[in-house]
Amino acid sequence: MSTVPFKGVIAYPITPFDNNEHIDIPLFKKQVERLVTAGVHGIAPLGSTGVMPYLNDGEKEAITEATMQQVAGRLPTLVGVSNLTTERTVYHARFAEKAGATAVMIIPMSYWKLTDDEIVKHYDKVASKISIPIMAYNNPATGGVDMSPTLLKRLLEIPNVTMIKESTGDIQRMHYLRKVLGEEVAFFNGSNPLALAAFSAGARGWCTAAPNLIPELNIALYDAIEKNHLDRARRVFYQQIELLKFIVAKGLPRSIKAGLDLLEVGGGGFKSPIQSLDEMEIAELAGILSAMENEVYQS
Amino acid sequence: MSTVPFKGVIAYPITPFDNNEHIDIPLFKKQVERLVTAGVHGIAPLGSTGVMPYLNDGEKEAITEATMQQVAGRLPTLVGVSNLTTERTVYHARFAEKAGATAVMIIPMSYWKLTDDEIVKHYDKVASKISIPIMAYNNPATGGVDMSPTLLKRLLEIPNVTMIKESTGDIQRMHYLRKVLGEEVAFFNGSNPLALAAFSAGARGWCTAAPNLIPELNIALYDAIEKNHLDRARRVFYQQIELLKFIVAKGLPRSIKAGLDLLEVGGGGFKSPIQSLDEMEIAELAGILSAMENEVYQS
Amino acid sequence: MSTVPFKGVIAYPITPFDNNEHIDIPLFKKQVERLVTAGVHGIAPLGSTGVMPYLNDGEKEAITEATMQQVAGRLPTLVGVSNLTTERTVYHARFAEKAGATAVMIIPMSYWKLTDDEIVKHYDKVASKISIPIMAYNNPATGGVDMSPTLLKRLLEIPNVTMIKESTGDIQRMHYLRKVLGEEVAFFNGSNPLALAAFSAGARGWCTAAPNLIPELNIALYDAIEKNHLDRARRVFYQQIELLKFIVAKGLPRSIKAGLDLLEVGGGGFKSPIQSLDEMEIAELAGILSAMENEVYQS
Amino acid sequence: MSTVPFKGVIAYPITPFDNNEHIDIPLFKKQVERLVTAGVHGIAPLGSTGVMPYLNDGEKEAITEATMQQVAGRLPTLVGVSNLTTERTVYHARFAEKAGATAVMIIPMSYWKLTDDEIVKHYDKVASKISIPIMAYNNPATGGVDMSPTLLKRLLEIPNVTMIKESTGDIQRMHYLRKVLGEEVAFFNGSNPLALAAFSAGARGWCTAAPNLIPELNIALYDAIEKNHLDRARRVFYQQIELLKFIVAKGLPRSIKAGLDLLEVGGGGFKSPIQSLDEMEIAELAGILSAMENEVYQS
Repeated sequence: MSTVPFKGVIAYPITPFDNNEHIDIPLFKKQVERLVTAGVHGIAPLGSTGVMPYLNDGEKEAITEATMQQVAGRLPTLVGVSNLTTERTVYHARFAEKAGATAVMIIPMSYWKLTDDEIVKHYDKVASKISIPIMAYNNPATGGVDMSPTLLKRLLEIPNVTMIKESTGDIQRMHYLRKVLGEEVAFFNGSNPLALAAFSAGARGWCTAAPNLIPELNIALYDAIEKNHLDRARRVFYQQIELLKFIVAKGLPRSIKAGLDLLEVGGGGFKSPIQSLDEMEIAELAGILSAMENEVYQS
Repeated sequence: MSTVPFKGVIAYPITPFDNNEHIDIPLFKKQVERLVTAGVHGIAPLGSTGVMPYLNDGEKEAITEATMQQVAGRLPTLVGVSNLTTERTVYHARFAEKAGATAVMIIPMSYWKLTDDEIVKHYDKVASKISIPIMAYNNPATGGVDMSPTLLKRLLEIPNVTMIKESTGDIQRMHYLRKVLGEEVAFFNGSNPLALAAFSAGARGWCTAAPNLIPELNIALYDAIEKNHLDRARRVFYQQIELLKFIVAKGLPRSIKAGLDLLEVGGGGFKSPIQSLDEMEIAELAGILSAMENEVYQS
Repeated sequence: MSTVPFKGVIAYPITPFDNNEHIDIPLFKKQVERLVTAGVHGIAPLGSTGVMPYLNDGEKEAITEATMQQVAGRLPTLVGVSNLTTERTVYHARFAEKAGATAVMIIPMSYWKLTDDEIVKHYDKVASKISIPIMAYNNPATGGVDMSPTLLKRLLEIPNVTMIKESTGDIQRMHYLRKVLGEEVAFFNGSNPLALAAFSAGARGWCTAAPNLIPELNIALYDAIEKNHLDRARRVFYQQIELLKFIVAKGLPRSIKAGLDLLEVGGGGFKSPIQSLDEMEIAELAGILSAMENEVYQS
Repeated sequence: MSTVPFKGVIAYPITPFDNNEHIDIPLFKKQVERLVTAGVHGIAPLGSTGVMPYLNDGEKEAITEATMQQVAGRLPTLVGVSNLTTERTVYHARFAEKAGATAVMIIPMSYWKLTDDEIVKHYDKVASKISIPIMAYNNPATGGVDMSPTLLKRLLEIPNVTMIKESTGDIQRMHYLRKVLGEEVAFFNGSNPLALAAFSAGARGWCTAAPNLIPELNIALYDAIEKNHLDRARRVFYQQIELLKFIVAKGLPRSIKAGLDLLEVGGGGFKSPIQSLDEMEIAELAGILSAMENEVYQS
C-alpha cells in the first residue's frame, strides 16, 4: 500500500445529531455519499469539523464504521483518532485500522503543554501498534501546541508517520517545512483561506470541510493548480474565498450545518454546549452562497 | 450555607499514578492530609494540577470520594467538574455534590470557541441541576476561551454562580473585574506569579498548587495581607517567587511531583504522554527549594 | 549629587501648541507651575506625553530651558533626550545637562530593531559625554524594542545609568527585575494602570502624566504605600483607575489636553497629524472626572 | 502620466556611509547603477532599507537628487518621504516632486497611535500639495499602526493615492484587499518571504531590497508569474527563499551591506547605533549566497 495515499481535496464530513443529541447515522451516511459523488479525493471523518473531541467512545466507533460502510473502498479514508492520553489514542487508532481506515490523523492534543520528547514518544507508541500510515497534524489553535519543523522532522523518522497537515495559517511555515523536510515530504494544507498560497507553495492536498457546501469550486482549484494554470486558479480561488473565510470565522461545524440546511441536504443538530448560528449569521451565509452561485455561472 | 465558602489559600493536590498508570489513592490521601495539616484554607481536587482532563470517569469519581474521606469536613472542598460537553459536566457536578463537595469549579472548555450565549447556557444548565455554589474559572491558556468581564457579569446572575477565578495573568483584568462587578463579588487569583499583585488588588483567595511544596510561605503571604502589612507581604512574596515561576514555567503536575519526590513525600507517577521533568530541571528545582529554605530561616 | 535623585510621583507635562502649531511657552510654564505647586516629586519634560519625537531641535531646546526656568530648582528634573541616532542623542543629552537638568531619560528608539550590543554601545557613548545620571527606559510599545532584564543589567554597569523605567505593563517583569538586578536598583513604573501593583512590588517611583489632572489622588497613593497602609492604597487606587485607563487608552497627549481644557487650565493645541479627542470622548472624560470628584469627597 | 507607474520588481537601494558617518554619494550611485543595469523595474530610495528615518533633511535631499541623476529617466522612481509630522512630510514630498520623482511612498509613522481620521487628514494634506502619485504603505512592524482595508479604501478616494504596499506578512490580508478594494486596485507586496504567495494572489509588484544581491532570481520569479508558469515560479522561489528569510531576520540594511561587501561591490558603513552583522552572521550569509549560486547554475 502507498505510504502517502492522499492528494487533492480531502473532505471532512460533519457529525449530525438528532433532537436528543444522539448521532444521526443515516444523515451522516447521506452527507458522506454526497461528498464521494461530488468527486473529492478522500474522506476524513472525526476531524475538528466532525466534533471528535465531544464524542464518547461509542459515538466515535459508530462514525468510523458508518464511514467505511458508505465509502466502501471508493476513496481513501483518513480517520481522526487523537486523544489527550496515549492509551486512548492507541485504542482508537487500532479500532480505525481494524475497521478498514486507509490512514489515521493524529494531533498532539495538550491540556498541559507537551515537550518535544513527550510528543515523539506519544506518536512512537501509537505508530508501533498499527500498520497503516499516520498523518501528523499541527494546529496550535486547537491542539494547544505548535510543532516546530524540527519536531516534525523527528516524527517523520517514525516509519509510518508519512504525512504532515499544517494549519498554523502561516504560509511561511509551509515554505520552511519544504526547505527543512525536503521536496519529497507530503504536506497538506489545513487552513482554508491559505488554499491558493499553499498549493502555490507545493502542498499535495487540501484538508477541508468546504466540499460539504461547494465541492465543484474546491476541486476546480486543485485541477487548475495541477494543470499549472495560475490565473485560472487565482480566479477560482477568489470566487470561493468569502465562503472559506466565513466558515473559518464562524466555526466549521456550525457553518457547515447551516449551509447544509440552506442547501436542503440537512445539517442535523448539535451537541451542547455548541449551538446553531444565529439568524443574522445564517442570512449572511445564504447571501455568500447565492452570490457565489451567480458568479460561478457567469465565469 | 455560605454562598462564598472560600478565602485565603486554596490548595490544589496532584493526582499520583502507579507504574501501570492507575491512580494511586493511598498516596493521594497522604498528600491531601499534608495540605490539611499545613493549614491551608481549602482543598481543590481535579484541577489542572490534578490532570483532570486526562482522567476517565471512574478515576474522577475515585479522586472525588477519596478527597471527601480524607478532608472529612475539616476544610471546604472545591471539585473540578469541567467537561467539553454540557451533559458530562452536569454528570460530574451532580456526582461531586452527592459525594459532599462544598462547591464545584467550572471552566468553559472549548475545542470550538464558544459564543457568550453558549457559555451562559452551559453554566445555566449545570447550575440548575445542583444546589452547591459554582466558581466560574477563566483561563484562556488552558480553556481556550477568554471570558470578558461582561460575560462574567452575566454568569454571576445565575444564582449559584457566586465566585470567579481569574488566571489570565493580567493584573489589569482584576482591576477591571472589581470595577465592573463591584467590590462585593468574590474573585480569586489563579496565577501564581500574580499572588502579591492580586491580593493587593483585593483578591479574596489564591488558588494554587504551591502549598504542596511551600505551604508556610503561601500562608504567610496571605496573613501579611490580611494584617495590612504591605512590606512583610512583599518580603515573603519575593522569598517564594522563584518557586512560583518555576512551577508555572515547567508545568504544575510535573513540577509538583518532582518537588514532592525531593521532599521525600513521594509525587507518584504520570499518565502518558506526560512525563517527568528531566534531570537538569529537577536539579534546578532542588536548588530553588534549598535556596528558599536558607533565606526563610534567615528572615 | 545623588545617583538616584527621584522617588514618588514624577509628573510628565504636555507640550502645548498655538494655532500655527508653534509651541506655546507661556502656557507650558503655567502647566509646569501647577504641577510643582500640587506637590509632585519630580518634573519630566519631553517624554512621550510631551510629544518629544514630533518636535524639532529648536522646540526641544525651548521646552528644556522653559522647564528649568519655571521649576527653578524646587524639584529634580528629568529631561527626555532620546533619538534614533546616537549622534543626536548625545547632542540633546549635553544640551539638557548644560541647561541644568538633574537627569536625562533615554529609550532606545528603534526603527530597525537593535541588537543588545548596539543598545549598550548607544548608552555607553551618550553616558561618556555627560556627568548627570541616566534613566534607561523600556517601553516596547513606543520604542519598538523590549530590553530584557539581562540587557538592563548590562546597562546598569555603565556608571551613570542608575535608574530603570519599566513600561511593558507586565507586573511579572518588575518582579523579575528586582530578583535579577537586586533590591538596591531603583526601578520606576511607567504604566499607569499598574500603579498599585508596581508600588506593591517595590517600585521607587511612578512616572505619569496623570498629575496634570488628578495630582492629589496620585500623591495620596504614594503616601499610603510609604506608610505601609495597603487598604488605603487600594481604596485610593480604585478611585483613580478609570481615569488612568482612559488616558492610556485614548493617548496621553490628547487626553491630558482635553482634561486641562475641562479643568479650565487650558491644554493648548496639537501638532498635525495628532488631533483632539472627539466630542464623545471628551464627554466620557468629563464624566470620569466628575464621578471621581464626587467619590473623593465622600471618602 | 500613468497613475500606477510601477509593476514587477521595485528595488530598494541602501544608504552607504563613510567612516565619519556621512553619506557616501559616489558609492550610492554605483549601487543604483548596478540595480538599473540588472533589469529591475523601478528604484525606490529612502525606504526602510535606505534607513530614511535616521537621516537628516540634508542627507535625504542629497540621496533624492543622486537617485534622479543616476537613474536619469531610465526607470520610474519611488521616493520615501514619510515623517512623524504632517508639515515635514509635505516638505519632503514637495522636494521629491521638484527633484523629478515619479511617485512618493508614505507610511503613517506613528509614535502615538493615530486614529483613522488623523491618517486620512495626513494623506489628504500631503496629496493636496503635490501632483505625482502616492503609494500608501502599510507596515505595522515599522510604522506602528496597522491600516485596515476599510481605511485603505478611504485613502484611495484621495485622487493621487493610487497604490498600496502591504507588508503585514499575512497573505490573507492581500486576499481581503483585493476583495474589498476591487481587482483594479494596484497592490504591491513588501514582505520578501511572501513573494510567491503575493504574486499568486495577484500583487502587481514586489518592493524589495533583495535585488541588491540577487536581481536575476528576483526578476525570474516575476517573469515566471507573468507567463503563468506556476511550477517554474515555485522552483525559482525556493531557490531564493533562504536569502529572503535571512535579510528579513537580520535586518535589511545590515544584511544588504554585508552581502554587497561579499560580492565585492562594497556596502559602505553604518550610522550609529546601527552596526554591522557579526562575523558568524556574515559567514552564514556567505554560505547562503554560494549555495544559491551553485543551485542556480544546476537548474
